[in-house]
Amino acid sequence: MKVNRIILFVITGFLLSTTGLFANEVTETLELHSQALDMIWLVLAASLVFFMQAGFAMVETGLTRAKNANNILMKNLMDFSAGALAYWAVGWAIMYGVSASGIIGTDQFFLTAADNTVFRDWMFQVVFAATAATIVSGAMAERTKFSSYLVYSVFVSALIYPISGHWIWNSEGWLSGIGFHDFAGSTVVHSVGGWIALAGAILLGPRKGKYIEIDGKKQTRAIPGHNMPLASLGVFILWFGWYGFNAGSTLSGTDLSIGAVAVTTTLAASAGAVISMITSWIWFKKPDPSMSLNGALAGLVGITAGCAVATPAGSIIIGLIAGVLVVVSVEFFDKVLHIDDPVGAISVHGICGAWGTLAVGLFANTDDIHGLFYGGGLNQLGIQAIGVFTVFAWAFGVGLVLFLIIKKTIGLRVSEKEELQGLDIGEHGSEAYAGFQIFSTQ
Amino acid sequence: MKVNRIILFVITGFLLSTTGLFANEVTETLELHSQALDMIWLVLAASLVFFMQAGFAMVETGLTRAKNANNILMKNLMDFSAGALAYWAVGWAIMYGVSASGIIGTDQFFLTAADNTVFRDWMFQVVFAATAATIVSGAMAERTKFSSYLVYSVFVSALIYPISGHWIWNSEGWLSGIGFHDFAGSTVVHSVGGWIALAGAILLGPRKGKYIEIDGKKQTRAIPGHNMPLASLGVFILWFGWYGFNAGSTLSGTDLSIGAVAVTTTLAASAGAVISMITSWIWFKKPDPSMSLNGALAGLVGITAGCAVATPAGSIIIGLIAGVLVVVSVEFFDKVLHIDDPVGAISVHGICGAWGTLAVGLFANTDDIHGLFYGGGLNQLGIQAIGVFTVFAWAFGVGLVLFLIIKKTIGLRVSEKEELQGLDIGEHGSEAYAGFQIFSTQ
Amino acid sequence: MKVNRIILFVITGFLLSTTGLFANEVTETLELHSQALDMIWLVLAASLVFFMQAGFAMVETGLTRAKNANNILMKNLMDFSAGALAYWAVGWAIMYGVSASGIIGTDQFFLTAADNTVFRDWMFQVVFAATAATIVSGAMAERTKFSSYLVYSVFVSALIYPISGHWIWNSEGWLSGIGFHDFAGSTVVHSVGGWIALAGAILLGPRKGKYIEIDGKKQTRAIPGHNMPLASLGVFILWFGWYGFNAGSTLSGTDLSIGAVAVTTTLAASAGAVISMITSWIWFKKPDPSMSLNGALAGLVGITAGCAVATPAGSIIIGLIAGVLVVVSVEFFDKVLHIDDPVGAISVHGICGAWGTLAVGLFANTDDIHGLFYGGGLNQLGIQAIGVFTVFAWAFGVGLVLFLIIKKTIGLRVSEKEELQGLDIGEHGSEAYAGFQIFSTQ
Repeated sequence: MKVNRIILFVITGFLLSTTGLFANEVTETLELHSQALDMIWLVLAASLVFFMQAGFAMVETGLTRAKNANNILMKNLMDFSAGALAYWAVGWAIMYGVSASGIIGTDQFFLTAADNTVFRDWMFQVVFAATAATIVSGAMAERTKFSSYLVYSVFVSALIYPISGHWIWNSEGWLSGIGFHDFAGSTVVHSVGGWIALAGAILLGPRKGKYIEIDGKKQTRAIPGHNMPLASLGVFILWFGWYGFNAGSTLSGTDLSIGAVAVTTTLAASAGAVISMITSWIWFKKPDPSMSLNGALAGLVGITAGCAVATPAGSIIIGLIAGVLVVVSVEFFDKVLHIDDPVGAISVHGICGAWGTLAVGLFANTDDIHGLFYGGGLNQLGIQAIGVFTVFAWAFGVGLVLFLIIKKTIGLRVSEKEELQGLDIGEHGSEAYAGFQIFSTQ
Repeated sequence: MKVNRIILFVITGFLLSTTGLFANEVTETLELHSQALDMIWLVLAASLVFFMQAGFAMVETGLTRAKNANNILMKNLMDFSAGALAYWAVGWAIMYGVSASGIIGTDQFFLTAADNTVFRDWMFQVVFAATAATIVSGAMAERTKFSSYLVYSVFVSALIYPISGHWIWNSEGWLSGIGFHDFAGSTVVHSVGGWIALAGAILLGPRKGKYIEIDGKKQTRAIPGHNMPLASLGVFILWFGWYGFNAGSTLSGTDLSIGAVAVTTTLAASAGAVISMITSWIWFKKPDPSMSLNGALAGLVGITAGCAVATPAGSIIIGLIAGVLVVVSVEFFDKVLHIDDPVGAISVHGICGAWGTLAVGLFANTDDIHGLFYGGGLNQLGIQAIGVFTVFAWAFGVGLVLFLIIKKTIGLRVSEKEELQGLDIGEHGSEAYAGFQIFSTQ
Repeated sequence: MKVNRIILFVITGFLLSTTGLFANEVTETLELHSQALDMIWLVLAASLVFFMQAGFAMVETGLTRAKNANNILMKNLMDFSAGALAYWAVGWAIMYGVSASGIIGTDQFFLTAADNTVFRDWMFQVVFAATAATIVSGAMAERTKFSSYLVYSVFVSALIYPISGHWIWNSEGWLSGIGFHDFAGSTVVHSVGGWIALAGAILLGPRKGKYIEIDGKKQTRAIPGHNMPLASLGVFILWFGWYGFNAGSTLSGTDLSIGAVAVTTTLAASAGAVISMITSWIWFKKPDPSMSLNGALAGLVGITAGCAVATPAGSIIIGLIAGVLVVVSVEFFDKVLHIDDPVGAISVHGICGAWGTLAVGLFANTDDIHGLFYGGGLNQLGIQAIGVFTVFAWAFGVGLVLFLIIKKTIGLRVSEKEELQGLDIGEHGSEAYAGFQIFSTQ
């Protein structure tokens, strides 16, 4: 009997220890795989979002004049490049550092003591910061001094974007604390860019020849873009990158709602493009290419806040409203307010970003958040409105101050002569299409 | 002794329960990781396939004339946008709903009751539906009314593509039932698009000035594309996206044949490009850029059906034959049949899609399927031929009916005056290259 | 007691066997997931690197003249297509086959007996081989015979690149053996391409009209590129693809340093772009677009060797030096050596590739490798220098021989008349921008 018992003890002991060893190994490998799924998902998503820079560059270049193409391309290259360095030095720390009262981050400057997780997260966040900065360049295109552009774009990536971003995306941020929901950045990224753009466009004034006084009444002149294939390519690239932008904002490769986010993103963009086309067809008698392109972007910006909480049908409605809104808004800023925004950035990113953020309060339908139309009452809508208006005040206000300081010091705008000649020659001493016969398109 | 025994019981019991708990946790995590691998793989692959829309837009724009660029870009934007809404409402249900006798799907309209898995699969499938629709626009470019385009492109995404798709890719489909193999859609996607395009090009008739009667004999005039860099970019984008198209069609992120599929895809495309260049060099005395570009696409379309069952050497032969075929076919449709296909879409997608589907019956070499050249006899080849011809009859037949109805009601073609002036002005009231000096290239 | 004991035995036995079965299943699934993570990571990374072909095509086309656009596009399409076939037949075997004395691989020609792992690895490697080949086309643009181009580009992919690649990336390679570190290919890919390009540019001679003798002194004439939006798009595409190039070079989807590699890549590229802009601003009085674009590429090439061993701060310094170096080098080759390199490929890939490789010996900071600035002394720097100089001797030397043979047989350069007229007409019988008014830009 004793022998039996000893055998039993030995077997059990062996079992215990090998099971334990095996269990440890399994647990470690499972943990590694979880982290690996997060890693490759976020780095690939970040790469897609990075590629949106090419999209913005092509849209902005295509929708403006050939004589300013080099200038716009340089701005797009530099807002990412200088912005990434600024976000490394300062921006990330302010946005994701330990929070001071939910207002601002206070550590991790220069990514000191970063580990693999921080590197991964920084990579995913830097491409969002650059997006906010690049939005501004579109509204201020064809007349802004290059040196001034560099200054304010660094400010956007280093300070303006990270501070309001801290409020919403830092887990200790005050807007996060009251339940404000902006999944992928309708407000954090797009509206911030749009409102700074609005401040800039106001202080800059319109391009020469954009509004002509005839019999004491301001007439608006359309200044068509010079390369619609590039603009269209840009929209396709942006849409493509948006799958990284929205679906990547799950922040985890094991979040099984990734597919649902991609679906709402697709449907809202599609609805936006179709309804903008229809709206322009009814209003202007022809289906307008640049309005339709902006409609797709409007749908994308509109669904960005709610892409993880809206149903497919909800996302289509969000996209439809965004697509109408962008046409009305572009016309309103242009024909009524006479604020010159060459590519419609204020309407696409500012207005539709605000709409998308509010739409969370209407269309959210998850276990946690219910919008007005899904039995949630006005509570979430109210919270969303607080976020929309606070961020407007912040971004527009600081934008005004920043641009005023630049205007009074190094100057915001190129000379009239340079504007007529084109910024490519004036700012960069080169032209974008050497050898092509191009008309003066004042 | 008793104490010992009790200890033994306790230990064993503890072991049993913890092992059980641990086992449950491990099983759940493994299941989550499997699903996560599928999720990120399919959503990323879907994004790549989405980006192919940009590729089609650039190829079609680049290979046609500047005066119709906006129109083609709008068509490409809208066939995806309207098509995605149609595929959400109807297409998916018809293709993947519960099968009625293997002919047509019957539930899941408007994605009702979809869960994460359905969202994921819809996302991957909608980009394929859009590809079929967009192929048609190339063959009908430069003369089709925009409103008619919208109507038929919605029909393609909502009905024509999903029905034949149901036969092949729904597990209950009748062609699937007899063993027809089309891994990533040489027939399901490309041939369907190509045959509808053929019906459209026939009913539309050629562009003005394309075929001129001289001494009672029709002479063919080449109408060169206006922007070869864009066309080339488009082909590179398509090739890039094709890695999502073919390798994504494993439908699983844990299928270790993903790499092999990418390899056969690469080799067939490369072989197609090289041999088309050589063929054009011999035939036309110069290595022709647009033929070479189409050769790469021919290789890609050709390998799409068999990318998971062909060997590397087999994929090269498939690509070589596709590359020769596309040159012969383009010339045959143009010079002999006088069917005007501005970008060669019928040859690239229709003819090479059929070739690739048949090639499965020749070159398949797996445990399950053996083609003629790998000891499988004529069996698989016969099944493939049935699929090719049935789908031709379906897509071409329904295409003819659809276009005839459109022709008799809203009309299929723009006025002669509008065609000469360009569809950009006539259909959209805008031009693609404002400021550039462009010749009339009738 | 006996019953108890029997129960105990039975339970223990059951536990043992089920645990064993479960353990086997778990182990297999974990192994599958590891392989799946590697598979989807490497295939997606390979797709990104493939897309860099589009980037090179756009950069080279944009920075040269419209009359040679088709020719450059064809070269970029063909060096990948023909190169992939060559790398399938020969290149892979020479690079990764069983090593003969660390000098050259000896088996796996035509990918015989390849399994899923080999397919995966071949897919990731073929896109690197194609990158080396395509670099050369930029430096030799606008004057090289197309047929000669095909010949030497196949040689690069089949022999020149794989042999030096074998030394460094085959685990048995002799440079690998002495501890040479080139993580993603500053030397293996970029310098090899750059040094072959140098050999080619020297033997070809400059484009007509590039250097004009005035009063016995050679004057340099700038020949501006014809399409800066395309060139900029190309740089964005390259940068995008570089995330696959560098981060993919972890060769494993479960390597958690993927994020860190993406970060150093981003920072070096950003620093390169910014400092090149500043350098050109100071030197030429204006921030120069093409220099800034090349600065981004310089930063990317510079960080490629050390992307996994440099700190963020180190990567910024590497990028800054690369960004200055590229401007100085471009000017030096052009103004002092009068070697005509239309796109700056020798400076970007050759010089900055060498710099990046040496920089590993200065900035490496890992457990294994310490550079000079991190307490590692001169050891690693010496090893890196050996690699840089041996590969220079190899690639430049063999390049000279190869081009000399081509020059003496089929000829390297098009006729003077063809060069003036443009290679598009002469080599391909077609033009890139039909309908556009383009000036002769000799």
